Amino acid sequence: MIIDCHGHYTTAPAAHNAWRETFGAGDTPPAYPVITDDEIRETIEGNQLRLMAERGIDLTIFSPRASAMAHHRDDAVTSTAWARACNDLIARVVGLHPGKFAGVCQLPQAVGVPMSGLIAELRRCVCDLGFVGLNLNPDPSGGHWTSPPLTDPVWYPLYEAMVELDVPAMVHVSAVTNPSFHATGSHYLNADTTAFMQLVQADLFKEFPGLRLIIPHGGGAVPYHWGRFRGLADMLGRPPLAESVMGNVYFDTCVYHQPGIDLLFQVIDTANILFGSEMVGAVRGRDPLTGAYFDDTRRYVDALDLGESDRYAVYEGNARRVYPRLPA
Amino acid sequence: MIIDCHGHYTTAPAAHNAWRETFGAGDTPPAYPVITDDEIRETIEGNQLRLMAERGIDLTIFSPRASAMAHHRDDAVTSTAWARACNDLIARVVGLHPGKFAGVCQLPQAVGVPMSGLIAELRRCVCDLGFVGLNLNPDPSGGHWTSPPLTDPVWYPLYEAMVELDVPAMVHVSAVTNPSFHATGSHYLNADTTAFMQLVQADLFKEFPGLRLIIPHGGGAVPYHWGRFRGLADMLGRPPLAESVMGNVYFDTCVYHQPGIDLLFQVIDTANILFGSEMVGAVRGRDPLTGAYFDDTRRYVDALDLGESDRYAVYEGNARRVYPRLPA
Repeated sequence: MIIDCHGHYTTAPAAHNAWRETFGAGDTPPAYPVITDDEIRETIEGNQLRLMAERGIDLTIFSPRASAMAHHRDDAVTSTAWARACNDLIARVVGLHPGKFAGVCQLPQAVGVPMSGLIAELRRCVCDLGFVGLNLNPDPSGGHWTSPPLTDPVWYPLYEAMVELDVPAMVHVSAVTNPSFHATGSHYLNADTTAFMQLVQADLFKEFPGLRLIIPHGGGAVPYHWGRFRGLADMLGRPPLAESVMGNVYFDTCVYHQPGIDLLFQVIDTANILFGSEMVGAVRGRDPLTGAYFDDTRRYVDALDLGESDRYAVYEGNARRVYPRLPA
Repeated sequence: MIIDCHGHYTTAPAAHNAWRETFGAGDTPPAYPVITDDEIRETIEGNQLRLMAERGIDLTIFSPRASAMAHHRDDAVTSTAWARACNDLIARVVGLHPGKFAGVCQLPQAVGVPMSGLIAELRRCVCDLGFVGLNLNPDPSGGHWTSPPLTDPVWYPLYEAMVELDVPAMVHVSAVTNPSFHATGSHYLNADTTAFMQLVQADLFKEFPGLRLIIPHGGGAVPYHWGRFRGLADMLGRPPLAESVMGNVYFDTCVYHQPGIDLLFQVIDTANILFGSEMVGAVRGRDPLTGAYFDDTRRYVDALDLGESDRYAVYEGNARRVYPRLPA
């Protein structure tokens, strides 16, 4: 069985996206539009389900479109309305295609909002909707980085709830308003690198031994600079990375060429790698050099010729360990 | 001959660093302290010169300590005073150790200051002090990213001067005040990735075909995600990277482990790679796995077993092409 840990509903119905455009911080969102089951099926069957079948992916861990979370646009009220609508839509996708998707929620984040709203929506999604994890945005400002690091105690109540519910978070930013950054070209990768370094600097996992975080996009710049991070940990008087961070942190395989995947598996323990493609996502075209889709990451992983136990770990076993609420 | 394109004066005399602490934006800097030639020799001979001899580096392209540029602390007046002092000190290092160093300047940047001051200091350093290049900080705010992208016309007057003087810029940020980031652990790498993506999005090198930029630290996350960047260029309707960017952009070899260097040379044309170590710099310790210094990047490059012409290109030829003002 092959589990893709990183899929977003980038093909959500137009009415859903149009509704989002009707409100922002300070507004009262209007009634949510009617979206039929057939409309949902249509957006999934020709896209994610088709590609999953073509690529041999059995199950996708599926969350709302990351770039559309856009927490910078919202206050607590509108972010809650938008998160609930997005998460309810994911729940419908999961319900309409039994066995093909597992839900991951977006949280009603916004700059400076209290954790209580995030935790309430997480509980609703896990307990009522059967979700298996969450996406956590370390920069709800949209590229201005005004929130405290992920290791700051302000986040602890959320981590307590995650540990209690036994769900992991993928650390995933959203759209940017800062013109220095391109969302998928630099902001996403920067956020991955930033989050990892925050974790190197602090003792978060001593506080929360059961906390599990997935850093997507192959860990940003981290595996390529693994020697730099090992050396920095040493210079900063921190424990070795294996000890302080890698007991609780996982990288996905959203790296869109063979040499990158080769390096990821060369430097990161297989136990810390989850198969993922971010399909249909950031990069949708075909590589003119190979004719294959850039984001068909299974091709790269298969080309590694892993042994059976490593192959099982990356494609299924690690995901089951990190997301224990996945259906058996 | 081996040229290291990336060295900073991280061991500058204490009096120089202490002087910096006496002023910030709005102040009138006091008189610069007396620093003797012997004091300078002492800070260099036991550090950079010793390591260069041990590692077989013949010439280091040498600039002021990057993290101490700290443009966020300054206004035009104090940033100019600090840049001049730092650059004058580099000129003294170069003069005291003939044939071992070539100077690269820091610019008197600060948020919102006009280009004229930067250009005046660049001209002074190139024409009067014999410098061969400059460091350009894409984020003088110190991790808040409040300046326009490097492709914005606000930077064009500086690029015009660079082309006229035939000097390249290394794109290099400095200290951070934003608690989200660690300077050498995330901000530096993020800046490299950010700058590259800015260049992908625009036609800067059509405007300035003679402009040359070095993106340090092995290009941040870029080579590891080379497929992502190729795919994004395609999705954004941009020309292939080789055409739009890689005629003018170079990566150094400041990647502190063998698998990272292997990947760099696997995906990036050798013509775009300059040998560099950032010694004495971000990571100063020895790798417990090998006993060697993390930043002894020559070990990794030598281990590639390059052919003679590629070896010459990476160690000397490319640097001479990118920095034509280097002494013969």
